[in-house]
Amino acid sequence: MAAMTYTLVLLRHGESEWNAKNLFTGWVDVPLSEKGVAEAKRGGELLKEAGVSPDILHTSLLRRAISTAYYALDVADLHWIPVKRDWRLNERHYGALQGKNKKEIREEYGEEQFMLWRRSYDVPPPEIELGSQYSQDAEPRYAGEPIPRSECLKDVLERALPYWDAEIVPDLKAGKTVLVAAHGNSLRAIIKHLDGIDDETIAGLNVPTGIPLVYELDENLTPVTKGGTYLDPDAAAEAIKAVANQGK
Amino acid sequence: MAAMTYTLVLLRHGESEWNAKNLFTGWVDVPLSEKGVAEAKRGGELLKEAGVSPDILHTSLLRRAISTAYYALDVADLHWIPVKRDWRLNERHYGALQGKNKKEIREEYGEEQFMLWRRSYDVPPPEIELGSQYSQDAEPRYAGEPIPRSECLKDVLERALPYWDAEIVPDLKAGKTVLVAAHGNSLRAIIKHLDGIDDETIAGLNVPTGIPLVYELDENLTPVTKGGTYLDPDAAAEAIKAVANQGK
Repeated sequence: MAAMTYTLVLLRHGESEWNAKNLFTGWVDVPLSEKGVAEAKRGGELLKEAGVSPDILHTSLLRRAISTAYYALDVADLHWIPVKRDWRLNERHYGALQGKNKKEIREEYGEEQFMLWRRSYDVPPPEIELGSQYSQDAEPRYAGEPIPRSECLKDVLERALPYWDAEIVPDLKAGKTVLVAAHGNSLRAIIKHLDGIDDETIAGLNVPTGIPLVYELDENLTPVTKGGTYLDPDAAAEAIKAVANQGK
Repeated sequence: MAAMTYTLVLLRHGESEWNAKNLFTGWVDVPLSEKGVAEAKRGGELLKEAGVSPDILHTSLLRRAISTAYYALDVADLHWIPVKRDWRLNERHYGALQGKNKKEIREEYGEEQFMLWRRSYDVPPPEIELGSQYSQDAEPRYAGEPIPRSECLKDVLERALPYWDAEIVPDLKAGKTVLVAAHGNSLRAIIKHLDGIDDETIAGLNVPTGIPLVYELDENLTPVTKGGTYLDPDAAAEAIKAVANQGK
């Protein structure tokens, strides 16, 4: 008898209107750009072509991830699968940087501080002011939730992994193919956990947008192939380069 | 202290590509037409203007209801609310008529038989052949479910009301504003139940597409205003006339 494996599919949302404008987005709920919608649909085509059929979707409370899942699953004829949404899969909260231009922040604070805020494992940006334009503290979707005012990647792990354990692992262990449609940093948190990546190395890991990343996991939820398999490896390699150049 | 009331919002999907072609659709999973997408977005605007904010969505497994909810909730900034999907909210199964032109069926079988299949409470159309082009018996979304091969409105009630009792009523009693995005006949089933409409009178009740119908329900889940309140009453009155003329 072949060993039982579990199938996990990670999908980073397509380009948003603020990605296109080079602004720090974080929890600001911007829509996909037209290009982002096209990326999402392409993601759905890749799932369909590969015969990868998620049984359940987990996503964040942010429109760009919800829309990406909607368009991808619609194209894949899987629009009807159950969905769970939770803020613990949200993008990293970018604190006071939310709404700011990446290039301007880089010029104002210098390359070192800029890269520290963008890529360090445990240094969060300054906290956002409650009630300010790009703060989400008054939004009904977060009512009663212990939401952050700024996060580093470590903080994202600390709120995403309890969700992983409580909600995603049981679906995997029930034999379901699980799709997680989420964000650069909530997906990096999951990948860091799965692949056992150390705190320094994770800084160099970029997840391309719109290309499903498939992990086969063994009975201990360890990846059979470290790093998983992108459904379009050439496009993924190209896109990883492009993400690495963001803010330059 | 004011009496506790519960809020229920019913939303029939916008025009589908087959509505536009005058074909019997039933469980065939056709997409919204462009007009249908616009109707859905308008439904979301009406919710937003009226300040009606659903806390949870219940919908069918069919794309036209799922898409209607997606576009309406996106416009209303409620894309993030939880969703439950179930085939028990699907459109009436139109049996062997699925995929057939309404006008042609009317000409072939005559007005009386045509209206019996369309509007009688308890006469289902002939059963669909399993494995045929417009049968859904092999679709993964219905695997293991006791799905029908043809339904009259009575059959729709008999599978929709257990879902109403088990899934929707608990959400209402928890104080949630519930949105049900569904189909002409699954919504008529719920309305018949809520308003206590008899088997003959229900034949004349049409639900317009894309216009939210709001019910305030008392502690016994009896409508405070019989028939509820459409958020755009003039458009609803116009649309009800148009639906009544379908197939003519």
